[in-house]
Amino acid sequence: MKYPPSLINLIRELSRLPGVGPKSAQRLAYHLFEQPREDIERLASAILEAKRDLTMCQECFNITDQELCDVCTDASRDRSQICVVEEPGDVNAIERSGEYRGLYHVLHGNINPMHGVSAEKLYIKPLLARLQKDGERPESFEVILATSTTVEGEATSMYLQRLVEPLGVTVSRIAYGLPVGGALEYADEVTLGRALAGRRRVTS
Amino acid sequence: MKYPPSLINLIRELSRLPGVGPKSAQRLAYHLFEQPREDIERLASAILEAKRDLTMCQECFNITDQELCDVCTDASRDRSQICVVEEPGDVNAIERSGEYRGLYHVLHGNINPMHGVSAEKLYIKPLLARLQKDGERPESFEVILATSTTVEGEATSMYLQRLVEPLGVTVSRIAYGLPVGGALEYADEVTLGRALAGRRRVTS
Repeated sequence: MKYPPSLINLIRELSRLPGVGPKSAQRLAYHLFEQPREDIERLASAILEAKRDLTMCQECFNITDQELCDVCTDASRDRSQICVVEEPGDVNAIERSGEYRGLYHVLHGNINPMHGVSAEKLYIKPLLARLQKDGERPESFEVILATSTTVEGEATSMYLQRLVEPLGVTVSRIAYGLPVGGALEYADEVTLGRALAGRRRVTS
Repeated sequence: MKYPPSLINLIRELSRLPGVGPKSAQRLAYHLFEQPREDIERLASAILEAKRDLTMCQECFNITDQELCDVCTDASRDRSQICVVEEPGDVNAIERSGEYRGLYHVLHGNINPMHGVSAEKLYIKPLLARLQKDGERPESFEVILATSTTVEGEATSMYLQRLVEPLGVTVSRIAYGLPVGGALEYADEVTLGRALAGRRRVTS
């Protein structure tokens, strides 16, 4: 039995999506086939419209449909902190925590020589430019390195630290430790070691 | 921080896809944002073209871009067997096994009262019509019930059995047993019981 060409084509396009293997691409294609035409057209135009409307914030490189994103234009945000993250999704993750009121900077990746991503491919130069803007930076300024705690994220964080520190700003790294709700016995020894090293005094 | 509307819209459309939760929809949306415009347009048109070109085979209700599918028009297929499956994807799964040379019939679902799918919503009537075509059916005719071995698949299979048997055809059900490569100790007791009951004599 031969597949119809437009089915093959749809499966091929779907299987390019991250986390979608050949089998799920096939399942997705069959699912789409069963949907009413309006739903399909709505999906296709959502994809095209998002690509047309969305762009990167000229300041922090987060996703936005304006020149500057909502965070960068929000006068109530603390302009003495920049939190550096790998992906736009990380901004949302941090926003959801409700623990941060400063600005962001999105690198769009991490240093990953295995995948051919060198520091030059990331939005590091604009970060340095933001930190060097004459007269605009508050007295005490903090750069929070919130890249992943993977090997690549760590490498990126260390690379940035060496570049940013000489500019006279405080550089910090997000805390390592046990995830909330995590049982000690399931934590790996490196995490546990870091959690112990990062312990904080509690007072009542 | 507010999401741009077209990003919200894209995430909402993506999260309607099966197996895509809100988090993966968000990851997919960010992934699409990072892709070149040509790739995005190719994906959108693959979706639209598949919906435009694909239809159901008028005979067996498999997916096709013709009036009749490749299996139904293939003169070399054994026309004394119809294998009844739930979804078009099941046809491909069976074709890949290389063990079957007969025809198919796709029900497009199984009887699932919990999800509001009654027997009337499935392509059961056309199956009965195929079996009752005057003079066209070979002497010995077999209907193989290859619905899932879930509760719903079993119910559908039993329902079909009662309808099809009176038409004077042989009705069979695919075998239950251990998956190939499966270790006995990990098999559940129901499967193991069925595998024992379905044992076959081996001769050298």
